[in-house]
This record gives sequence, structure tokens and C-alpha cells, in this order.
Amino acid sequence: MKVGIIGVGTVGASVANILRDNKDIITARAGCEIEPAIGVVNNLNKKRDVTIELTDDLEKVLNDDSIDVIVELMGGIERPYEIIKKALANGKAVVTANKALLAYHRYELQDLAGDTPFEYEASVAGGIPIINALRDGLTANNILSIRGIMNGTCNYMLTKMINEGIDYDTILKEAQELGYAEADPTFDVGGFDAAHKLLILGSIAYGIDVKPEDILIEGIQNISSEDIDFAKEFNYSIKLLTIAKKVDNEIELRVHPSLIPNHEMISKVDGVMNGVSVIGDKVGETMYYGAGAGGDATASAVIANIIDIARRGKGAPMLGFETPHGKNLKLMPKENIRTKYYLRLRVEDKAGVLAKIATILGSKNISIEKMIQKPLNRTCAHILLSTHTSTEKDVIEALKTIEEAGVVTGKTAMIRIED
Amino acid sequence: MKVGIIGVGTVGASVANILRDNKDIITARAGCEIEPAIGVVNNLNKKRDVTIELTDDLEKVLNDDSIDVIVELMGGIERPYEIIKKALANGKAVVTANKALLAYHRYELQDLAGDTPFEYEASVAGGIPIINALRDGLTANNILSIRGIMNGTCNYMLTKMINEGIDYDTILKEAQELGYAEADPTFDVGGFDAAHKLLILGSIAYGIDVKPEDILIEGIQNISSEDIDFAKEFNYSIKLLTIAKKVDNEIELRVHPSLIPNHEMISKVDGVMNGVSVIGDKVGETMYYGAGAGGDATASAVIANIIDIARRGKGAPMLGFETPHGKNLKLMPKENIRTKYYLRLRVEDKAGVLAKIATILGSKNISIEKMIQKPLNRTCAHILLSTHTSTEKDVIEALKTIEEAGVVTGKTAMIRIED
Repeated sequence: MKVGIIGVGTVGASVANILRDNKDIITARAGCEIEPAIGVVNNLNKKRDVTIELTDDLEKVLNDDSIDVIVELMGGIERPYEIIKKALANGKAVVTANKALLAYHRYELQDLAGDTPFEYEASVAGGIPIINALRDGLTANNILSIRGIMNGTCNYMLTKMINEGIDYDTILKEAQELGYAEADPTFDVGGFDAAHKLLILGSIAYGIDVKPEDILIEGIQNISSEDIDFAKEFNYSIKLLTIAKKVDNEIELRVHPSLIPNHEMISKVDGVMNGVSVIGDKVGETMYYGAGAGGDATASAVIANIIDIARRGKGAPMLGFETPHGKNLKLMPKENIRTKYYLRLRVEDKAGVLAKIATILGSKNISIEKMIQKPLNRTCAHILLSTHTSTEKDVIEALKTIEEAGVVTGKTAMIRIED
Repeated sequence: MKVGIIGVGTVGASVANILRDNKDIITARAGCEIEPAIGVVNNLNKKRDVTIELTDDLEKVLNDDSIDVIVELMGGIERPYEIIKKALANGKAVVTANKALLAYHRYELQDLAGDTPFEYEASVAGGIPIINALRDGLTANNILSIRGIMNGTCNYMLTKMINEGIDYDTILKEAQELGYAEADPTFDVGGFDAAHKLLILGSIAYGIDVKPEDILIEGIQNISSEDIDFAKEFNYSIKLLTIAKKVDNEIELRVHPSLIPNHEMISKVDGVMNGVSVIGDKVGETMYYGAGAGGDATASAVIANIIDIARRGKGAPMLGFETPHGKNLKLMPKENIRTKYYLRLRVEDKAGVLAKIATILGSKNISIEKMIQKPLNRTCAHILLSTHTSTEKDVIEALKTIEEAGVVTGKTAMIRIED
């Protein structure tokens, strides 16, 4: 299957490079090779970090019968709309990450596409497969509400404001320096980017056709340190929340800063991360969390769509692979597992015991990270310790040696630490 | 499309009832009506909360040419395996929630199914569409690791132990009384249930074929209050974690209690809830959270699979609906939105101001939930307050009245509260 990529910026380059770098697993999952055949750019002289062929002849690519899928990553609204129309008219499947395009033209595009695949997972919440979840995974449900944190710029800024007490102007400047915010940040901090994504989810949940102009959109520009203090005092987080909610036969669609109680799972989505909570009438709340932006994360969603198109007609293979995979992979023997360990040893409370334990652990290359000793009664104590990364075999042998040496007066407990 | 349900217990009854209760939206999403035609039970005399026809003649249903999909919800391993073999031989699509069956026979079933749809979303993490995410949403990635909290019984118990200091035996008894744990709890607390689910995810991520006997499985039975204290002291949570991890050409598959740093998103999955964190080489970490058990949540996943089967050959419709939906839904006017509000008012620091504000708010049916007043300087103060649920229109009018009455000395800030 041959793919033409229109727009080879950060995401376009990632799509081309991941199709190359992860070719083996992608081929096994798709059941065919997916070739990033060509990239279309405006400026051929600009240096780009890709190995695919580039052209500035868009028409040629759109009319090339050997190209099966057009990936639109150029941005804008009306120009990509015209280009995608042509691609669909030429029978090409389309994948886009363009939320603005969909916020305005999703229903026309649905009509134009008909039976031709048109996919757009990357348009909402970057690498999180939220469209997949909502469109395929939660289909048994009437969706009661969707609450999303879908703009990483705003979430980064608000998290810093609440956790570190930094004021709006300072953190905006920092976000701009880090590349998290644009020179003109209005599209992000004003809530418009999040609104575009909300409209897409609103359509999948409710089939409702509205435009950004129709809904309530407020940005985070007026959040002050007093508001932050109030939030902290009453155990709230502040998030730019996109909300879709069904109330009788009306649908609320709105984007604005919101105070969310800290016990709610979605309030824990911090920094540049995105999170979407969906409440279905049958499944209850489910939540989806991950990177909402970035070249590779966004490309991950674009390529999932391309693989989905390759699988059209037969569906996903039962265990995920069209052709056998994993033949060269084998189960790691239990004793070779490497992780950190927590140990609880019951010992006699007398001099030299800790030294003996440390010596035995050291002889097995197990080094102690943290330790506390707690008296149990007049003669016994508990030593609780965590280790640096060690090998399961060494830990088991060390515990056996410790037991045989008579250092402990009861069975030693061991819990693995995963961090 | 006609569905035969083998086993009409809690989940089977939910499948039948949701197909009836949510018929409109399911039909719009599937593009055809999905009829729960018949349920197969052992004991016809037992009272069940369903309206579908019941039979104890399994063979008749398996041989009924009008049945398109067999939903296996009977439990066990070898008997459902034989039944599913027959269903597949008769050309019927199969949906199952049976993790034990898949832990032992998933590769044989894949071979037997061939091009006949065989789906099993409900077998892992109940209502969370994690198989959907892993098999369809993250396909561009080499999966680096999967860490799952996939046994609600264990997570409920461990959460209570760590949050409330209850000991293992007491909380086990409570979980049994609440129906969260079986009379013989070994399958859950011993880690075997979680291990079955892990093997399924391990296959989708890595294509690796191993059985429960091959992997490291430890339960939560030996977690003591001293371990809990250590975890709290060093900012860890304790979770029964299922881990699949790729290290060079070896795959770690293991289930055991784990200490997880509290800053990690997966450590925040508490109580009976399930959560699965997946790290892909391109997308980074994504996490999936929701109800891992319960009749309706599990049925939500079963029905998503049935709808997926109805859509076979054409894929999911672009915006999620095969036939128009939402025509009777309309956007709620902004002014009718009802939520709670936070207000920050800048006022002169003198007697009577708060009374005036409270009076104006009261006249618009806005009642105050919490309030703090903070001096700003010698003459001014901030009043920060939250309201009970109010209507947007009333709040906007009240703020206008407050402003016009000259009660405030600056612009009033308003943030909506979502809880």
C-alpha cells in the first residue's frame, strides 16, 4: 500500500520515519507493506529529516494511480478541504490530523467519502486512541458526558500555575520558549483548538452538527493567582475542560476553564498530557490518557489509521497480527527478571544483624536504596528496605542465604518495586 | 443480525437487556438491528431478569442457521472451547468474555476462526476498550511495556488496606460480603485471573504464546500492615500489577503485588476500578481506565464486539453512525447551561457589601456553597465564593446587577465548577 504525505513538517516527517523504522511490526499487523511513497512540500529547498522522495507537484500525487492513501498534514481549512475532495474523487483513502478542517467540514466530508475510508484519529488528543474508543469501543452506550483535557499548552500552563504558583504571563512566556505555545498563543489559550476537538467528539457521541461559532468557548487568559489559591484551598484543580453532555434532548457543548474536585481521575491529568473522560450509560466512566501532541505521538495515530485502512474488508486480525510475529521472541526466564525489590526481614534486635544482612546482599550485587528499622517487641525488630535494580535470581539466593545463616527469625517478605 | 447468548447470568442478562434498551443508538451505529434472539441456560426454572426467549437446547441454537453470532458467557475452559469450535464450524461469528479459555486456547481459536469474526474485548478489563486500543489504536508502535491493574477484587482490597489501614483478613471478609470477592477467593487474590488477562494482552502486543503455568504469578495474600506502612512512608502505592515488558528479544510476563511511586498515573487507579498503562516506542505512555467488572460494563464490551461484527467488510462509519442519528437532538443554548460557579468579586472592604451581593445572588436563585473573603489592601477585599448548581443566564444577570449596583470595584471573575 502506497502512501502520499501532503505536508512534511514535524508530524509528516514522523509518519514517514516511523513507517520506515517500525516497518516489520507494521507489516505484520497490517498484513501488507505500507510504503511512504512520496511527500508533498511547498519548498523543496528546506532541509527535512526524512529519507522519502519529496515533490512540490501536488496534482501529480493526487492523480497518481499507484498512491492508495493520502495523508493530509498541511493545516488550514479550505485548501486541505479542496485537496481532500480531489483525493476522494480519485478514489484515494484519506487520513488527516486536521481538527480545524473537521470542525467545519466533517459532515460534508462524510458525505463525500461515502464508502472510501476517511480517518482522523490524530485530530483529537494526539496519540490517544480516543476516536477509536468512542466510535468502536463504547458503541453499546448512550454517552452521558465527555470531559476532555485536550490542549497540552493550557494544561501545562495551568499545572505550573497551580503547582508552582507561577503567574499567567510568566508561564506563557516559558511555554513559548519551550515550544509548547505559539508566538500568538490565542488559538490554544483562547480555547479554540480544544473546541475543534470537542466538536469532533460531539459528532461521534451524538451525531450533532454544529460549528465552533455556535458554542461557548472561553480561554484561560483571565485565571489569576487568587483563583488558583481558592482552588487549592477547596481541593480543586483548574483545567481547560471541553464538555459534551446530554441533558434530555439537548446537548451541551462548551469549552472553558473549570474547577474539578481533586478526587476525580481527570483532575490528575497534569502538564502537557491530555486526558478524556467518557461516561456511558452502561459502562460508567472510562478515561483515556496520553500525549496530546508531538510528532511521533501524533504520527502513531495517523499510522494506526493507515493500518486500519489496510485491514478494511476483513477487520483487525483476532490476535492483532496478520502474519506471524513474535517467533524470535521468547519468554524471559523468571530468575532473570530485573527490577527493584522491597524486603521486610524479621530479625533479633541486636548488634551486627544489619551488617550481616548488608554483607549477604552485597555479595549478590544487591545494593540498598532506602532502609528503616522498626522494633517489633523487646527482642525483635523489622528491617524494611528497598534495593536498587537487582536480578530476581540474586535476590532469591540472598534471601535463602540470609535464612540459612539464621539472621532472620521469620519468613522474609518481598515485594517488587516498579518505577 | 441475530445473536444467541450461551449463559444468561449477570453479564448475559445485561447483554440481552442493553440490546433491548439501547436499541435505537445501537442500530444507528451498527447499520442494522441486532436482535438478542435466544439465550441458552442449564436451568430453565431459575428466574432471570430478561425478556428474551430461553432454551436449554444448546445444540439447536448452534445449528440454527438464523443465528449469526454466538456470545459465549458460560465460563470454564474445555466445554466453551468445544462449543465455540462447533459455532465456528457452523460459520457463526463468536464473541466471548472468557479469559480463562483464551489464556489456554487463543492460538488454536485464532486458527479455527480463520476469516470468521472472533472477538473478546470483555475478556480483559471489563468495559475498558483496551483490546481495541492495543490491537487497533497503537499499531504503529513497538510496545515497550504494559502495566495493568486488572483485578478489581485485589485493587479494592489493597486500596482499603492502604487508605484505611484495614488488615488483609478483615478486608477480604468485607469484599466477600459486598460480592467483590468469591467464597473461595484464590482465583482473584492469587493473581490467576489477572494472569489470564495478561496473557491475552501479551499476545496482542508481542505475538507470544505462553500458558499461565509458564509465568511468574504471585498473589496479594502476604501483604502485611508493615508493608503498607513502608509504602506510605516512601510515597508508594501497592497494586497487583500485571506486567508485560520487552527486553531485547525476551518478553517478561509477570503478575505480582508491586510498589508503584505515587506520581505515576497508574498508581492513582483505586478501588474496584481497572487501569492499563501501555508504553509504545512512538506514542509514549497512554493509559486506559474504567470499570473492570460488573454486568453492564462487561456487556458494553461484548456488544461493542457484536456491532464491530455487524460493520465487518466496511469498517466503522466515519462519524460513528451508519444511519443518521441526532436529528432530534439540538444544541443547548449557552444561557441554559446549569452548573456550579466560582466567583471572585473585588469589593470595598466595608460593612453591608457582602449582604448586598448575597441578596442579589439570592434574587436570581443562586445560593452560595462556600465563601472566603481576603483583604487586598486597606480599602479593598476579594470575595471568593462557590455556588450550588445555578443557571448560566441567572449568573450572568446577577453579575451585571452587582456591577450596575456599584458593589464591585473591578471586573468579577467567574469559573465554572464541574463535579
